[in-house]
Amino acid sequence: MSIKLETANPVRSFKGRGMELVASRLADQGATAVVCASAGNLGQALGWSGSRRGLDVTVVARRLAPAVKLDRIRSFGANLELVDGDFEVARERAVTLARQRGVRLVEDSLDLDTCEGAATIGLELVSALSPGDVVLIALGGGAMATGIGHVLKTLAPGVEVVCVQPQGAPALTLSWRARRVVTTDSMDTIADGVAGRFPIAAVLDDLLQVADDAVLVREESIIAGMRMLLEHAGLVVEPSAALGVAAVLEDPDRFAGRHVVTVICGSNVDLHAYQGWVAG
Amino acid sequence: MSIKLETANPVRSFKGRGMELVASRLADQGATAVVCASAGNLGQALGWSGSRRGLDVTVVARRLAPAVKLDRIRSFGANLELVDGDFEVARERAVTLARQRGVRLVEDSLDLDTCEGAATIGLELVSALSPGDVVLIALGGGAMATGIGHVLKTLAPGVEVVCVQPQGAPALTLSWRARRVVTTDSMDTIADGVAGRFPIAAVLDDLLQVADDAVLVREESIIAGMRMLLEHAGLVVEPSAALGVAAVLEDPDRFAGRHVVTVICGSNVDLHAYQGWVAG
Repeated sequence: MSIKLETANPVRSFKGRGMELVASRLADQGATAVVCASAGNLGQALGWSGSRRGLDVTVVARRLAPAVKLDRIRSFGANLELVDGDFEVARERAVTLARQRGVRLVEDSLDLDTCEGAATIGLELVSALSPGDVVLIALGGGAMATGIGHVLKTLAPGVEVVCVQPQGAPALTLSWRARRVVTTDSMDTIADGVAGRFPIAAVLDDLLQVADDAVLVREESIIAGMRMLLEHAGLVVEPSAALGVAAVLEDPDRFAGRHVVTVICGSNVDLHAYQGWVAG
Repeated sequence: MSIKLETANPVRSFKGRGMELVASRLADQGATAVVCASAGNLGQALGWSGSRRGLDVTVVARRLAPAVKLDRIRSFGANLELVDGDFEVARERAVTLARQRGVRLVEDSLDLDTCEGAATIGLELVSALSPGDVVLIALGGGAMATGIGHVLKTLAPGVEVVCVQPQGAPALTLSWRARRVVTTDSMDTIADGVAGRFPIAAVLDDLLQVADDAVLVREESIIAGMRMLLEHAGLVVEPSAALGVAAVLEDPDRFAGRHVVTVICGSNVDLHAYQGWVAG
Protein backbone atom coordinates (compact mmCIF):
# COMPACT_ATOMS: atom_id res chain seq x y z
CA MET A 1 0.00 0.00 0.00
CA SER A 2 1.25 3.47 -0.84
CA ILE A 3 0.14 6.75 0.59
CA LYS A 4 -0.08 10.07 -1.21
CA LEU A 5 0.73 12.56 1.52
CA GLU A 6 -1.24 15.80 1.38
CA THR A 7 -0.58 17.05 4.90
CA ALA A 8 3.01 18.32 4.65
CA ASN A 9 2.09 21.89 3.81
CA PRO A 10 1.12 25.01 5.77
CA VAL A 11 -2.61 24.24 5.83
CA ARG A 12 -2.15 20.52 6.52
CA SER A 13 -4.67 19.32 3.95
CA PHE A 14 -5.04 19.01 0.18
CA LYS A 15 -7.36 22.02 0.07
CA GLY A 16 -4.51 24.44 -0.57
CA ARG A 17 -4.29 23.15 -4.13
CA GLY A 18 -7.71 24.49 -5.07
CA MET A 19 -7.61 27.61 -2.94
CA GLU A 20 -4.30 28.76 -4.41
CA LEU A 21 -6.06 28.64 -7.76
CA VAL A 22 -9.15 30.50 -6.50
CA ALA A 23 -7.21 33.18 -4.66
CA SER A 24 -4.73 33.85 -7.44
CA ARG A 25 -7.52 34.15 -10.01
CA LEU A 26 -9.52 36.48 -7.75
CA ALA A 27 -6.46 38.64 -7.12
CA ASP A 28 -5.78 38.80 -10.87
CA GLN A 29 -9.39 39.96 -11.40
CA GLY A 30 -9.03 42.70 -8.80
CA ALA A 31 -11.48 41.12 -6.36
CA THR A 32 -11.19 42.24 -2.74
CA ALA A 33 -13.25 39.69 -0.83
CA VAL A 34 -14.37 36.08 -0.87
CA VAL A 35 -16.67 33.87 1.22
CA CYS A 36 -16.84 30.13 1.80
CA ALA A 37 -18.51 27.61 4.05
CA SER A 38 -16.09 25.11 5.48
CA ALA A 39 -16.03 21.98 7.59
CA GLY A 40 -12.64 23.34 8.66
CA ASN A 41 -9.99 22.59 6.06
CA LEU A 42 -11.27 24.61 3.11
CA GLY A 43 -11.49 27.67 5.36
CA GLN A 44 -7.88 27.33 6.46
CA ALA A 45 -6.74 27.02 2.88
CA LEU A 46 -8.79 29.98 1.65
CA GLY A 47 -7.59 31.99 4.66
CA TRP A 48 -3.97 31.21 3.90
CA SER A 49 -4.13 31.71 0.14
CA GLY A 50 -6.51 34.69 0.23
CA SER A 51 -4.92 36.67 3.04
CA ARG A 52 -1.49 36.45 1.43
CA ARG A 53 -3.00 38.14 -1.63
CA GLY A 54 -4.77 40.87 0.30
CA LEU A 55 -8.25 39.40 0.00
CA ASP A 56 -10.80 39.83 2.77
CA VAL A 57 -11.72 36.22 3.54
CA THR A 58 -14.87 35.20 5.42
CA VAL A 59 -15.34 31.59 6.45
CA VAL A 60 -18.61 30.19 7.80
CA ALA A 61 -18.23 27.08 9.93
CA ARG A 62 -20.23 25.19 12.48
CA ARG A 63 -19.62 26.14 16.07
CA LEU A 64 -18.87 22.51 16.97
CA ALA A 65 -16.17 22.00 14.32
CA PRO A 66 -12.87 20.87 15.89
CA ALA A 67 -11.41 23.80 17.82
CA VAL A 68 -8.02 23.35 16.13
CA LYS A 69 -9.62 23.91 12.76
CA LEU A 70 -11.44 27.04 13.91
CA ASP A 71 -8.30 28.39 15.59
CA ARG A 72 -6.23 27.82 12.48
CA ILE A 73 -8.82 29.47 10.23
CA ARG A 74 -8.52 32.59 12.41
CA SER A 75 -4.73 32.33 12.60
CA PHE A 76 -4.51 32.46 8.80
CA GLY A 77 -6.25 35.84 8.86
CA ALA A 78 -9.80 34.88 7.89
CA ASN A 79 -12.95 36.31 9.47
CA LEU A 80 -14.74 33.38 11.03
CA GLU A 81 -18.52 33.30 11.40
CA LEU A 82 -19.92 30.43 13.43
CA VAL A 83 -23.35 28.86 13.05
CA ASP A 84 -25.29 26.40 15.14
CA GLY A 85 -26.11 23.17 13.37
CA ASP A 86 -24.21 21.08 10.88
CA PHE A 87 -22.24 21.81 7.73
CA GLU A 88 -25.39 22.28 5.64
CA VAL A 89 -26.41 25.22 7.84
CA ALA A 90 -22.99 26.79 7.30
CA ARG A 91 -23.38 26.31 3.57
CA GLU A 92 -26.72 28.14 3.51
CA ARG A 93 -25.33 31.01 5.58
CA ALA A 94 -22.35 31.41 3.25
CA VAL A 95 -24.66 31.64 0.24
CA THR A 96 -26.64 34.39 1.97
CA LEU A 97 -23.52 36.31 3.01
CA ALA A 98 -21.97 36.22 -0.43
CA ARG A 99 -25.21 37.40 -2.02
CA GLN A 100 -25.64 40.24 0.47
CA ARG A 101 -22.08 41.43 -0.04
CA GLY A 102 -21.93 40.77 -3.74
CA VAL A 103 -18.68 38.83 -3.45
CA ARG A 104 -17.45 35.52 -4.80
CA LEU A 105 -18.72 32.42 -3.02
CA VAL A 106 -16.40 29.41 -3.12
CA GLU A 107 -18.57 26.31 -3.05
CA ASP A 108 -16.54 23.22 -2.35
CA SER A 109 -16.98 20.47 -4.97
CA LEU A 110 -19.48 22.49 -7.05
CA ASP A 111 -16.86 25.12 -7.84
CA LEU A 112 -14.68 23.58 -10.54
CA ASP A 113 -11.59 25.30 -9.10
CA THR A 114 -11.88 23.08 -6.03
CA CYS A 115 -11.99 19.99 -8.26
CA GLU A 116 -9.14 21.22 -10.44
CA GLY A 117 -7.00 21.66 -7.35
CA ALA A 118 -7.66 18.09 -6.33
CA ALA A 119 -7.06 16.98 -9.91
CA THR A 120 -3.40 18.00 -9.58
CA ILE A 121 -3.07 15.18 -7.05
CA GLY A 122 -4.16 12.84 -9.81
CA LEU A 123 -1.54 14.27 -12.16
CA GLU A 124 1.14 13.52 -9.58
CA LEU A 125 -0.16 9.99 -9.08
CA VAL A 126 -0.41 8.88 -12.69
CA SER A 127 3.25 8.05 -13.23
CA ALA A 128 3.25 5.75 -10.17
CA LEU A 129 0.22 3.75 -11.26
CA SER A 130 -0.33 0.70 -13.50
CA PRO A 131 -3.52 -0.91 -14.79
CA GLY A 132 -5.16 -2.92 -12.01
CA ASP A 133 -3.99 -0.61 -9.26
CA VAL A 134 -6.56 0.87 -6.91
CA VAL A 135 -6.81 4.45 -5.66
CA LEU A 136 -8.89 4.96 -2.52
CA ILE A 137 -10.29 8.46 -2.09
CA ALA A 138 -12.13 9.91 0.90
CA LEU A 139 -15.58 11.06 -0.18
CA GLY A 140 -17.15 14.15 1.30
CA GLY A 141 -18.63 16.78 -0.99
CA GLY A 142 -16.92 15.07 -3.91
CA ALA A 143 -14.25 17.54 -5.04
CA MET A 144 -11.35 15.24 -4.31
CA ALA A 145 -12.99 12.17 -5.82
CA THR A 146 -14.18 13.88 -9.00
CA GLY A 147 -10.94 15.84 -9.44
CA ILE A 148 -8.60 12.89 -9.01
CA GLY A 149 -11.05 10.51 -10.65
CA HIS A 150 -11.33 12.60 -13.79
CA VAL A 151 -7.56 12.63 -14.25
CA LEU A 152 -7.23 8.90 -13.63
CA LYS A 153 -10.07 7.91 -15.95
CA THR A 154 -8.48 10.05 -18.67
CA LEU A 155 -4.79 9.25 -18.23
CA ALA A 156 -4.84 5.88 -16.42
CA PRO A 157 -8.18 4.25 -17.32
CA GLY A 158 -7.09 0.82 -16.04
CA VAL A 159 -6.83 2.11 -12.48
CA GLU A 160 -9.79 1.42 -10.20
CA VAL A 161 -11.18 4.50 -8.43
CA VAL A 162 -12.88 3.64 -5.15
CA CYS A 163 -14.52 6.30 -2.99
CA VAL A 164 -14.81 5.76 0.75
CA GLN A 165 -17.30 7.39 3.09
CA PRO A 166 -18.24 6.76 6.73
CA GLN A 167 -21.39 4.74 7.37
CA GLY A 168 -22.39 7.61 9.63
CA ALA A 169 -22.39 10.19 6.80
CA PRO A 170 -23.30 8.18 3.69
CA ALA A 171 -25.33 10.63 1.60
CA LEU A 172 -23.13 10.85 -1.49
CA THR A 173 -22.39 7.11 -1.50
CA LEU A 174 -26.09 6.31 -1.28
CA SER A 175 -26.65 8.82 -4.09
CA TRP A 176 -23.94 7.20 -6.24
CA ARG A 177 -25.54 3.80 -5.73
CA ALA A 178 -29.05 5.07 -6.48
CA ARG A 179 -27.80 7.22 -9.38
CA ARG A 180 -29.86 10.12 -8.01
CA VAL A 181 -29.43 12.54 -5.11
CA VAL A 182 -30.24 10.93 -1.76
CA THR A 183 -30.17 13.14 1.35
CA THR A 184 -30.01 12.06 4.96
CA ASP A 185 -31.63 13.54 8.05
CA SER A 186 -28.62 13.35 10.32
CA MET A 187 -24.95 12.39 10.55
CA ASP A 188 -22.89 10.61 13.14
CA THR A 189 -19.17 10.22 12.46
CA ILE A 190 -15.85 11.37 13.85
CA ALA A 191 -14.77 12.10 10.26
CA ASP A 192 -15.89 15.74 10.45
CA GLY A 193 -14.10 16.63 7.22
CA VAL A 194 -16.40 14.54 5.02
CA ALA A 195 -19.69 14.96 6.86
CA GLY A 196 -22.48 16.34 4.66
CA ARG A 197 -26.14 15.49 4.15
CA PHE A 198 -27.09 17.21 0.86
CA PRO A 199 -25.11 15.96 -2.16
CA ILE A 200 -24.91 18.38 -5.09
CA ALA A 201 -26.56 16.99 -8.24
CA ALA A 202 -23.85 18.26 -10.60
CA VAL A 203 -21.16 16.67 -8.46
CA LEU A 204 -23.03 13.37 -8.42
CA ASP A 205 -23.21 13.46 -12.22
CA ASP A 206 -19.43 13.79 -12.36
CA LEU A 207 -18.92 11.13 -9.72
CA LEU A 208 -21.06 8.65 -11.66
CA GLN A 209 -18.67 9.07 -14.57
CA VAL A 210 -15.40 8.54 -12.69
CA ALA A 211 -15.97 6.34 -9.63
CA ASP A 212 -15.81 2.57 -10.04
CA ASP A 213 -17.17 1.99 -6.58
CA ALA A 214 -18.20 3.77 -3.40
CA VAL A 215 -17.95 1.96 -0.09
CA LEU A 216 -18.98 2.76 3.47
CA VAL A 217 -16.81 2.03 6.50
CA ARG A 218 -17.45 1.75 10.22
CA GLU A 219 -16.16 4.20 12.82
CA GLU A 220 -13.98 1.54 14.46
CA SER A 221 -12.29 0.88 11.12
CA ILE A 222 -11.54 4.59 10.73
CA ILE A 223 -9.89 4.55 14.15
CA ALA A 224 -7.95 1.38 13.29
CA GLY A 225 -6.80 3.12 10.12
CA MET A 226 -5.61 6.15 12.07
CA ARG A 227 -3.71 3.82 14.38
CA MET A 228 -2.05 2.07 11.42
CA LEU A 229 -0.93 5.36 9.92
CA LEU A 230 0.58 6.30 13.28
CA GLU A 231 2.38 3.00 13.74
CA HIS A 232 3.53 2.40 10.18
CA ALA A 233 4.13 5.92 8.91
CA GLY A 234 4.54 8.13 11.98
CA LEU A 235 1.60 10.24 10.85
CA VAL A 236 -1.05 11.79 13.05
CA VAL A 237 -4.00 12.30 10.71
CA GLU A 238 -7.59 13.39 10.99
CA PRO A 239 -10.28 10.72 10.67
CA SER A 240 -11.16 11.59 7.06
CA ALA A 241 -7.59 10.80 6.03
CA ALA A 242 -7.88 7.24 7.33
CA LEU A 243 -10.95 6.26 5.29
CA GLY A 244 -8.90 4.52 2.60
CA VAL A 245 -6.99 2.41 5.10
CA ALA A 246 -10.30 1.62 6.82
CA ALA A 247 -11.69 0.28 3.54
CA VAL A 248 -8.72 -2.08 3.17
CA LEU A 249 -9.05 -3.26 6.75
CA GLU A 250 -12.73 -4.07 6.23
CA ASP A 251 -12.24 -5.99 2.99
CA PRO A 252 -8.64 -7.24 2.80
CA ASP A 253 -9.39 -9.97 0.25
CA ARG A 254 -10.61 -7.44 -2.28
CA PHE A 255 -7.28 -5.61 -2.21
CA ALA A 256 -4.88 -8.51 -1.58
CA GLY A 257 -1.93 -8.60 -3.97
CA ARG A 258 -2.80 -5.30 -5.60
CA HIS A 259 -1.01 -1.99 -5.43
CA VAL A 260 -3.31 0.23 -3.40
CA VAL A 261 -2.82 3.97 -3.06
CA THR A 262 -4.72 6.19 -0.68
CA VAL A 263 -4.63 9.94 -0.32
CA ILE A 264 -3.82 11.20 3.17
CA CYS A 265 -5.93 14.29 2.80
CA GLY A 266 -5.69 16.11 6.13
CA SER A 267 -4.07 16.19 9.55
CA ASN A 268 -6.03 18.91 11.32
CA VAL A 269 -7.10 16.95 14.34
CA ASP A 270 -7.51 17.81 17.98
CA LEU A 271 -4.67 15.92 19.67
CA HIS A 272 -6.66 15.21 22.79
CA ALA A 273 -9.53 13.67 20.82
CA TYR A 274 -7.00 11.80 18.67
CA GLN A 275 -5.31 10.26 21.65
CA GLY A 276 -8.67 9.21 23.01
CA TRP A 277 -9.56 7.43 19.78
CA VAL A 278 -6.21 5.82 19.04
CA ALA A 279 -5.35 4.77 22.58
CA GLY A 280 -8.90 3.57 23.30
CA MET B 1 10.22 27.75 9.74
CA SER B 2 10.01 25.16 7.00
CA ILE B 3 10.63 21.46 7.24
CA LYS B 4 12.14 19.22 4.60
CA LEU B 5 10.37 15.93 5.17
CA GLU B 6 12.51 12.83 4.72
CA THR B 7 10.29 10.31 6.48
CA ALA B 8 7.53 9.72 3.91
CA ASN B 9 9.19 6.76 2.23
CA PRO B 10 9.38 3.01 2.87
CA VAL B 11 12.43 3.21 5.14
CA ARG B 12 11.23 6.30 7.01
CA SER B 13 14.54 8.16 6.90
CA PHE B 14 16.77 9.99 4.41
CA LYS B 15 19.16 7.04 4.24
CA GLY B 16 17.37 5.49 1.27
CA ARG B 17 18.86 8.19 -0.94
CA GLY B 18 22.41 6.95 -0.47
CA MET B 19 21.61 3.28 -0.25
CA GLU B 20 19.70 3.28 -3.53
CA LEU B 21 22.90 4.58 -5.08
CA VAL B 22 25.10 2.00 -3.34
CA ALA B 23 22.84 -0.95 -4.09
CA SER B 24 22.24 -0.05 -7.71
CA ARG B 25 25.98 0.40 -8.33
CA LEU B 26 26.79 -2.89 -6.60
CA ALA B 27 24.15 -4.71 -8.62
CA ASP B 28 25.52 -3.19 -11.83
CA GLN B 29 28.98 -4.45 -10.88
CA GLY B 30 27.67 -7.97 -10.29
CA ALA B 31 28.33 -7.90 -6.54
CA THR B 32 26.35 -10.38 -4.46
CA ALA B 33 26.81 -9.17 -0.89
CA VAL B 34 27.34 -6.05 1.18
CA VAL B 35 27.93 -5.24 4.85
CA CYS B 36 27.32 -2.14 6.96
CA ALA B 37 27.27 -1.04 10.56
CA SER B 38 24.17 0.89 11.46
CA ALA B 39 22.62 2.80 14.31
CA GLY B 40 19.39 1.54 12.79
CA ASN B 41 18.38 3.65 9.81
CA LEU B 42 21.22 2.92 7.40
CA GLY B 43 20.65 -0.79 7.91
CA GLN B 44 16.97 -0.50 7.03
CA ALA B 45 17.79 1.44 3.90
CA LEU B 46 20.53 -0.95 2.78
CA GLY B 47 18.23 -3.88 3.56
CA TRP B 48 15.45 -2.41 1.45
CA SER B 49 17.58 -1.28 -1.48
CA GLY B 50 19.91 -4.28 -1.45
CA SER B 51 17.38 -7.06 -1.00
CA ARG B 52 15.27 -5.74 -3.87
CA ARG B 53 18.32 -6.16 -6.09
CA GLY B 54 19.16 -9.66 -4.89
CA LEU B 55 22.09 -8.63 -2.72
CA ASP B 56 22.89 -10.50 0.47
CA VAL B 57 22.82 -7.71 3.05
CA THR B 58 24.40 -7.99 6.50
CA VAL B 59 23.82 -5.24 9.04
CA VAL B 60 25.74 -4.98 12.31
CA ALA B 61 23.93 -3.04 15.03
CA ARG B 62 24.08 -2.67 18.76
CA ARG B 63 21.83 -4.96 20.73
CA LEU B 64 20.28 -1.99 22.54
CA ALA B 65 19.30 -0.08 19.40
CA PRO B 66 15.55 0.68 19.36
CA ALA B 67 13.68 -2.58 18.81
CA VAL B 68 11.61 -1.03 16.01
CA LYS B 69 14.78 -0.32 14.06
CA LEU B 70 16.12 -3.84 14.53
CA ASP B 71 12.75 -5.36 13.60
CA ARG B 72 12.52 -3.27 10.45
CA ILE B 73 16.08 -4.14 9.40
CA ARG B 74 15.07 -7.80 9.55
CA SER B 75 11.74 -7.18 7.86
CA PHE B 76 13.53 -5.67 4.87
CA GLY B 77 15.40 -8.95 4.38
CA ALA B 78 18.79 -8.13 5.87
CA ASN B 79 20.83 -10.45 8.05
CA LEU B 80 21.17 -8.72 11.38
CA GLU B 81 24.19 -9.27 13.64
CA LEU B 82 23.96 -7.73 17.09
CA VAL B 83 26.89 -6.58 19.23
CA ASP B 84 27.15 -5.52 22.83
CA GLY B 85 28.37 -1.98 23.30
CA ASP B 86 27.77 1.21 21.36
CA PHE B 87 27.82 2.12 17.70
CA GLU B 88 31.62 2.18 17.56
CA VAL B 89 31.72 -1.52 18.47
CA ALA B 90 29.29 -2.26 15.65
CA ARG B 91 31.49 -0.30 13.27
CA GLU B 92 34.58 -2.34 14.16
CA ARG B 93 32.69 -5.60 13.78
CA ALA B 94 31.40 -4.60 10.34
CA VAL B 95 34.94 -3.82 9.19
CA THR B 96 36.07 -7.28 10.32
CA LEU B 97 33.12 -9.05 8.70
CA ALA B 98 33.59 -7.31 5.36
CA ARG B 99 37.30 -8.10 5.33
CA GLN B 100 36.71 -11.78 6.21
CA ARG B 101 34.10 -12.17 3.51
CA GLY B 102 35.80 -10.00 0.94
CA VAL B 103 32.64 -7.96 0.33
CA ARG B 104 31.89 -4.28 0.07
CA LEU B 105 31.66 -2.39 3.36
CA VAL B 106 29.38 0.63 3.37
CA GLU B 107 30.82 3.11 5.85
CA ASP B 108 28.33 5.84 6.64
CA SER B 109 29.71 9.33 6.08
CA LEU B 110 33.15 8.11 4.93
CA ASP B 111 31.67 6.42 1.90
CA LEU B 112 31.02 9.20 -0.59
CA ASP B 113 27.87 7.45 -1.84
CA THR B 114 26.27 8.11 1.55
CA CYS B 115 27.11 11.80 1.26
CA GLU B 116 25.97 11.99 -2.35
CA GLY B 117 22.63 10.55 -1.33
CA ALA B 118 22.22 13.25 1.28
CA ALA B 119 23.41 15.83 -1.23
CA THR B 120 20.28 15.22 -3.29
CA ILE B 121 18.32 16.73 -0.37
CA GLY B 122 20.39 19.86 -0.90
CA LEU B 123 19.56 19.91 -4.59
CA GLU B 124 15.86 19.82 -3.73
CA LEU B 125 16.26 22.61 -1.18
CA VAL B 126 18.20 25.10 -3.27
CA SER B 127 15.26 26.54 -5.22
CA ALA B 128 13.40 27.30 -1.96
CA LEU B 129 16.30 29.20 -0.36
CA SER B 130 17.52 32.79 -0.44
CA PRO B 131 20.70 34.39 0.91
CA GLY B 132 20.41 34.82 4.67
CA ASP B 133 18.29 31.72 5.15
CA VAL B 134 19.44 29.07 7.59
CA VAL B 135 19.46 25.30 7.14
CA LEU B 136 19.67 23.26 10.33
CA ILE B 137 21.06 19.76 9.88
CA ALA B 138 21.27 16.97 12.43
CA LEU B 139 24.89 15.96 12.92
CA GLY B 140 25.85 12.35 13.53
CA GLY B 141 28.62 10.79 11.45
CA GLY B 142 28.46 13.77 9.13
CA ALA B 143 27.08 12.36 5.86
CA MET B 144 23.95 14.48 5.88
CA ALA B 145 25.75 17.67 6.91
CA THR B 146 28.60 17.33 4.42
CA GLY B 147 26.33 16.17 1.61
CA ILE B 148 23.75 18.92 1.97
CA GLY B 149 26.38 21.46 3.02
CA HIS B 150 28.49 20.87 -0.07
CA VAL B 151 25.53 21.51 -2.36
CA LEU B 152 24.47 24.63 -0.48
CA LYS B 153 27.94 26.15 -0.35
CA THR B 154 28.26 25.57 -4.10
CA LEU B 155 24.80 26.57 -5.32
CA ALA B 156 23.50 28.82 -2.51
CA PRO B 157 26.58 30.23 -0.78
CA GLY B 158 24.59 32.91 1.07
CA VAL B 159 22.69 30.28 3.05
CA GLU B 160 23.95 29.56 6.56
CA VAL B 161 24.60 25.87 7.29
CA VAL B 162 24.23 25.04 10.97
CA CYS B 163 24.86 21.55 12.30
CA VAL B 164 23.11 20.41 15.48
CA GLN B 165 24.21 17.64 17.81
CA PRO B 166 23.06 16.54 21.27
CA GLN B 167 25.16 17.70 24.22
CA GLY B 168 25.20 14.03 25.21
CA ALA B 169 26.98 12.94 21.99
CA PRO B 170 29.10 15.93 20.99
CA ALA B 171 32.23 14.37 19.44
CA LEU B 172 31.97 15.75 15.91
CA THR B 173 30.87 19.20 17.11
CA LEU B 174 33.80 19.36 19.51
CA SER B 175 36.04 18.25 16.65
CA TRP B 176 34.65 20.93 14.34
CA ARG B 177 35.30 23.57 16.98
CA ALA B 178 38.83 22.32 17.69
CA ARG B 179 39.54 21.76 13.97
CA ARG B 180 40.92 18.32 14.84
CA VAL B 181 39.38 14.99 15.76
CA VAL B 182 38.14 14.90 19.34
CA THR B 183 36.76 11.62 20.69
CA THR B 184 34.63 11.06 23.77
CA ASP B 185 34.57 8.23 26.26
CA SER B 186 30.84 7.81 26.49
CA MET B 187 27.50 9.06 25.19
CA ASP B 188 24.21 9.80 26.81
CA THR B 189 21.34 10.90 24.55
CA ILE B 190 17.94 9.70 23.39
CA ALA B 191 18.97 10.69 19.86
CA ASP B 192 20.27 7.22 19.02
CA GLY B 193 20.54 7.99 15.32
CA VAL B 194 23.36 10.52 15.75
CA ALA B 195 25.27 8.98 18.64
CA GLY B 196 28.93 8.32 17.84
CA ARG B 197 32.20 8.83 19.70
CA PHE B 198 34.90 8.56 17.01
CA PRO B 199 34.62 11.19 14.28
CA ILE B 200 36.24 10.30 10.96
CA ALA B 201 39.09 12.67 10.03
CA ALA B 202 38.18 12.88 6.35
CA VAL B 203 34.59 13.73 7.24
CA LEU B 204 35.75 16.43 9.63
CA ASP B 205 37.86 17.95 6.85
CA ASP B 206 34.75 18.18 4.66
CA LEU B 207 32.64 19.51 7.49
CA LEU B 208 35.14 22.28 8.20
CA GLN B 209 34.67 23.44 4.62
CA VAL B 210 30.87 23.52 4.56
CA ALA B 211 29.50 24.12 8.07
CA ASP B 212 29.11 27.71 9.29
CA ASP B 213 28.41 26.60 12.82
CA ALA B 214 27.88 23.52 14.95
CA VAL B 215 25.73 23.78 18.06
CA LEU B 216 24.88 21.43 20.90
CA VAL B 217 21.39 21.07 22.36
CA ARG B 218 19.96 19.66 25.57
CA GLU B 219 17.85 16.54 25.82
CA GLU B 220 14.81 18.49 27.04
CA SER B 221 15.03 20.70 23.97
CA ILE B 222 15.05 17.65 21.71
CA ILE B 223 11.89 16.44 23.43
CA ALA B 224 10.28 19.88 23.14
CA GLY B 225 11.18 19.82 19.46
CA MET B 226 9.53 16.42 19.02
CA ARG B 227 6.44 17.77 20.74
CA MET B 228 6.33 20.80 18.43
CA LEU B 229 6.56 18.62 15.34
CA LEU B 230 3.67 16.54 16.67
CA GLU B 231 1.49 19.56 17.49
CA HIS B 232 2.28 21.73 14.49
CA ALA B 233 2.87 19.19 11.76
CA GLY B 234 1.19 15.96 12.90
CA LEU B 235 4.54 14.17 12.66
CA VAL B 236 5.85 11.52 15.02
CA VAL B 237 9.62 11.68 14.57
CA GLU B 238 12.66 10.12 16.16
CA PRO B 239 14.78 12.33 18.43
CA SER B 240 17.49 12.97 15.82
CA ALA B 241 14.90 14.56 13.54
CA ALA B 242 14.03 17.16 16.18
CA LEU B 243 17.57 18.53 16.64
CA GLY B 244 17.00 21.49 14.34
CA VAL B 245 13.82 22.55 16.11
CA ALA B 246 15.64 22.12 19.42
CA ALA B 247 18.34 24.54 18.27
CA VAL B 248 15.73 27.19 17.45
CA LEU B 249 14.01 26.68 20.81
CA GLU B 250 17.31 27.17 22.64
CA ASP B 251 18.32 30.32 20.79
CA PRO B 252 15.20 31.97 19.33
CA ASP B 253 16.83 35.41 18.98
CA ARG B 254 19.46 34.06 16.64
CA PHE B 255 16.84 32.80 14.21
CA ALA B 256 14.11 35.45 14.68
CA GLY B 257 12.82 36.89 11.42
CA ARG B 258 14.82 34.51 9.26
CA HIS B 259 13.62 31.70 7.06
CA VAL B 260 14.81 28.58 8.82
CA VAL B 261 14.67 25.13 7.22
CA THR B 262 15.33 21.90 9.03
CA VAL B 263 15.54 18.39 7.66
CA ILE B 264 13.20 15.87 9.31
CA CYS B 265 15.59 13.00 8.81
CA GLY B 266 13.88 9.98 10.40
CA SER B 267 10.75 8.67 12.10
CA ASN B 268 11.84 5.24 13.26
CA VAL B 269 10.97 5.59 16.90
CA ASP B 270 9.55 3.22 19.47
CA LEU B 271 6.03 4.55 20.06
CA HIS B 272 6.04 3.64 23.72
CA ALA B 273 9.29 5.50 24.36
CA TYR B 274 8.01 8.39 22.26
CA GLN B 275 4.84 8.72 24.25
CA GLY B 276 6.87 8.68 27.45
CA TRP B 277 9.06 11.54 26.24
CA VAL B 278 6.41 13.70 24.65
CA ALA B 279 3.71 13.25 27.30
CA GLY B 280 6.21 13.57 30.16
